[in-house]
Formats: sequence, structure tokens, C-alpha cells
Amino acid sequence: MKLINFNNNIFGLVLDDKIYDLTHAQQVHTFTDALHWLQGKDEQQIQSIKASAQSFELKDVQINSPVPHPGKVVAAPINYKAHIEEMKNNGQAFGHILTDIRQAGLFLKASSSVVGLSQGIAQRFLDRRTDHEIELCVVIGKLCDHVKKEEALSYVAGYCLGLDITIRGTEDRSFRKSLDSYTVFGPWMTINHPQFDPQNIDLELKVNEELRQQTSTQDMVMSVVELIEYASSFYTLYPGDVIMTGTPQGVGPIRPGDTLHAKGSGLGQMSVKVRAA
Amino acid sequence: MKLINFNNNIFGLVLDDKIYDLTHAQQVHTFTDALHWLQGKDEQQIQSIKASAQSFELKDVQINSPVPHPGKVVAAPINYKAHIEEMKNNGQAFGHILTDIRQAGLFLKASSSVVGLSQGIAQRFLDRRTDHEIELCVVIGKLCDHVKKEEALSYVAGYCLGLDITIRGTEDRSFRKSLDSYTVFGPWMTINHPQFDPQNIDLELKVNEELRQQTSTQDMVMSVVELIEYASSFYTLYPGDVIMTGTPQGVGPIRPGDTLHAKGSGLGQMSVKVRAA
Repeated sequence: MKLINFNNNIFGLVLDDKIYDLTHAQQVHTFTDALHWLQGKDEQQIQSIKASAQSFELKDVQINSPVPHPGKVVAAPINYKAHIEEMKNNGQAFGHILTDIRQAGLFLKASSSVVGLSQGIAQRFLDRRTDHEIELCVVIGKLCDHVKKEEALSYVAGYCLGLDITIRGTEDRSFRKSLDSYTVFGPWMTINHPQFDPQNIDLELKVNEELRQQTSTQDMVMSVVELIEYASSFYTLYPGDVIMTGTPQGVGPIRPGDTLHAKGSGLGQMSVKVRAA
Repeated sequence: MKLINFNNNIFGLVLDDKIYDLTHAQQVHTFTDALHWLQGKDEQQIQSIKASAQSFELKDVQINSPVPHPGKVVAAPINYKAHIEEMKNNGQAFGHILTDIRQAGLFLKASSSVVGLSQGIAQRFLDRRTDHEIELCVVIGKLCDHVKKEEALSYVAGYCLGLDITIRGTEDRSFRKSLDSYTVFGPWMTINHPQFDPQNIDLELKVNEELRQQTSTQDMVMSVVELIEYASSFYTLYPGDVIMTGTPQGVGPIRPGDTLHAKGSGLGQMSVKVRAA
């Protein structure tokens, strides 16, 4: 089951490749409203929305971020071994890096950098190397403070694809990665269910026709449940906060005119255009 | 003129050391509402609130952050020369540091870390060095994208004191500084007016009876208007976003049981208790 945000903040459910408008049919105006509406509903109750809600074709709408205004966007810097190796072997672009995520800590991206796939990426500072990073993203569904990893998945509302667009350079990560439109979430949020295994997702990113990143989340260093445990030992996570779980190897530059094609098993796919800001 | 938030999200004006309740008298429910209400009002119109609004004594209320939920909290890492010197001379606590703010960039603190003085600081990880940093904070009042420094002050809603509580260590700054309650704003927001000069504020921080930090904002490396220009060249600043302008020398450790006494000329003073989380 998939929660989508479209046409400038309408929430909908994607069922059989059609969008059903929850906002007007069920007074769902915010991401929190959507979480409340979904809570405790079974498959049959969800499907019954088809009878009452207006439907749209995916190709006919503007698709926004499934979480339009996260309270915070938390990200893991070095969470795939092969990506750590490529960073170590490319010091000019990446600088000195720590190799243990508990030494490096997590970092923040500005919530104001979040867009959906239809808004695209507006690239600034065209003289500086700017890279794509595809990531599995975890959307928090319940207040999460000192949560143990054994319980962590029950705090997850769902999952989506994320693009962490990054200028290389000496500035603080939370600055270089927080430009407007440098965090793309989408195409929708796949709602968490017991059969969904976040550690068995195939991720793939192409730039135009060129395959750049391809991996399984099996190769993560710190798993989703460990990230939730670790993050929530430092600060409280709130519904709508997003954890970006780190990027695999294959990070590379983007330019205005490029189209990024991201996909993830169980998460759908999204094509995102890059333009000059 | 001073905007305050008290007793769990009531907005008020502080006039002659009394608080006048704007929320119930004027339907001011959010920080944005307060900005709208203030817009274009002259001193006489403001003072007339005394006739219609309920009043409270400062000592009788719980004081929250004047901006309860900033969209983002931006901070400057190395913005007083004498603080840079103390960091360089104390590598064990501070590690390798950059000395040029344009190389270091700005960083983010989590909005979820923001509290007011009455909530106090709940210190975690008591075996790790955790420091106080007093800072002049700038609250943004209008959407701010690529703003030039000559125009920058017209985008400022007001100013307040800030405490940037910081665990020392190797982790990303945006992680070590984002624990719940590690960003204290208060006691109120002094509303921007043409006579208020942000580069001529005396800041002082005592821990219990001991003077730790004392400086003038004259000693800043990058001024308030330059910080706004720099930040808004990377990302859009929105009303309610806060820029913490960096801490002067005298940074030092805090422990549960301590009380931090912060003051700033034109900004008021606040006493904040530290407890174990």
C-alpha cells in the first residue's frame, strides 16, 4: 500500500496504479492526518476508498514528496563498505573521512531542501562538483525515544526512495547537502507491513542511460533498526521525521540537463530532472 | 518591544515587565500569526493591547522558546577569533578545526532540540565533555533567498539569546549539538527596530557564580548581515528560521546541577538549569 502527495499537497492512496484522493474524501490534510487515517485499517477498509474518492492517473499529476515537511531529515554518512572504499580512494573529492559510523555520527539535512520528483533538482554553484546519492529512506510513524532495535520497526510508518544531492568541498555536510531541492523523496511512501524487509531492497540509480549505483540494502553497515536505535539514543524522532540510510558505491557528478532514474524493489521508481537554479 | 511564548504556547508581548496575552486577545496562535499581527503596527497600537489583554507577571509563568518550532536552526561554527584560538590550543577537546568560516560552512541543529529557559537542559552521556556556548540569535521574519547584505536587516524579525549545548567528540556537529533541549532560546525575542545594532551587543554567560564567557558582538568574524547573505546563497531562509551567530571564547563544561545565567544587552537575561536526562 502506498501513500502519495500530489498536485500541491493532496494526499492519496495508490491502488492498482491509480491515485485515490484521500484529502477531499476523508479530510486528510497533513501527513499526521494520513497516519491517523491509516491506523488500524485493514486491507478491505482501505480498498473501500475506491468507491468514494476521486481517482487520478499517475501520469496526469504533479508528484510531491510523500512527507512534504519533515520535522527533521537525519542521514547516515558512511553506511556501505564499498562506498567507504571509493571515498578513501578519492581523497580529492571527499577529503579526510572517518570509517566508523559511530565515530562519524549521523548528520542533518535541512527540511527546506525536500522536494518531490516533479519539482526536480535546481543545481547551484555549477563550477563545483555536485553528486547524486541514492538512499533507502525510513519515515518515522510514532514518537521514538531510546527505542531498542528489537522494537524499532514498529515505529516505522513506511519507506521511500531518496536522493541526497551533495556538493563536494570542505564545508559542513549539513550545509553542502541542504540547498533547496537537494533532497528528493518519492515517488510515494510504501506503507510499512510485516512482509516488507528493509534489508533486502535492490536499489538502482541511472543518470540518463548510464547505470551509476546498484546495490542491495543487505550491504548496509548499520541496519535500519540499528539506525533507529542509535538516532533515538541522541534525540527524539517524531512522526514524519525521515532517516536516510546512506548511499552505496557509484556516487558521481550531475549536471543541468541530466535526468536521474531511481528505483528500489517495493518502492517504485522515479525520474528527476536536473536544471540550473 | 518583546515577543514572548509562555505557558505552553501562548504568545504575549512584554511591556513594562508584564506579559500581555496576544493569543487569546488577538487570535495569535503561531509564530507566523504573531509576525502578521505585529506587521505595520506602531508603538501606540501595540501599547493599546494593554487595555484588552490579560496580563501576567514574568515570575509567574513558564517561559518557552520565543520561536517554538523553527523550520531550521542554522549555526556558525567559528565566528569569534578568540574562540578559534582557544579551539586551536585545545586539540584534544575540539579536534582538527578549519579557521575560515567560508571553508567550514554553516551547520544545522535539529529543530527538535529547541526549548525555552523554563524547560532547562537535560544532559545525556554524562561521561562525555559537554559545553555551553552563548550566542546572539537572529530570527528571520521574511522569506530570504539570495539576499544581499545591504538589505539583510529588513529580513530580520528579531533577536534573542541562544545556548548551543555541545558534546565534544568526533561525530558530525549536527549530531552532537542536536540532543533534546540542547538549543535554548530566550527569554523572549526582541523585535527588530532601526535603533537595534546587532553588532554592538554585550554577551555574558555565567555558570553558577563563575563568569565563563563575556564579549561584544563587535568581535564577530562574519557579521549578522554577512551571515544572512551567505546562508541565503545556499538555501532559502523562511520566517521563524533562526541563525545562531557563533560563540565567543570561554566555552567550558557543564554538569547536572549547574545553572547557566545568560544575558545580552537589549536581549534580557535567562537562567537555565541543567539536570541529568
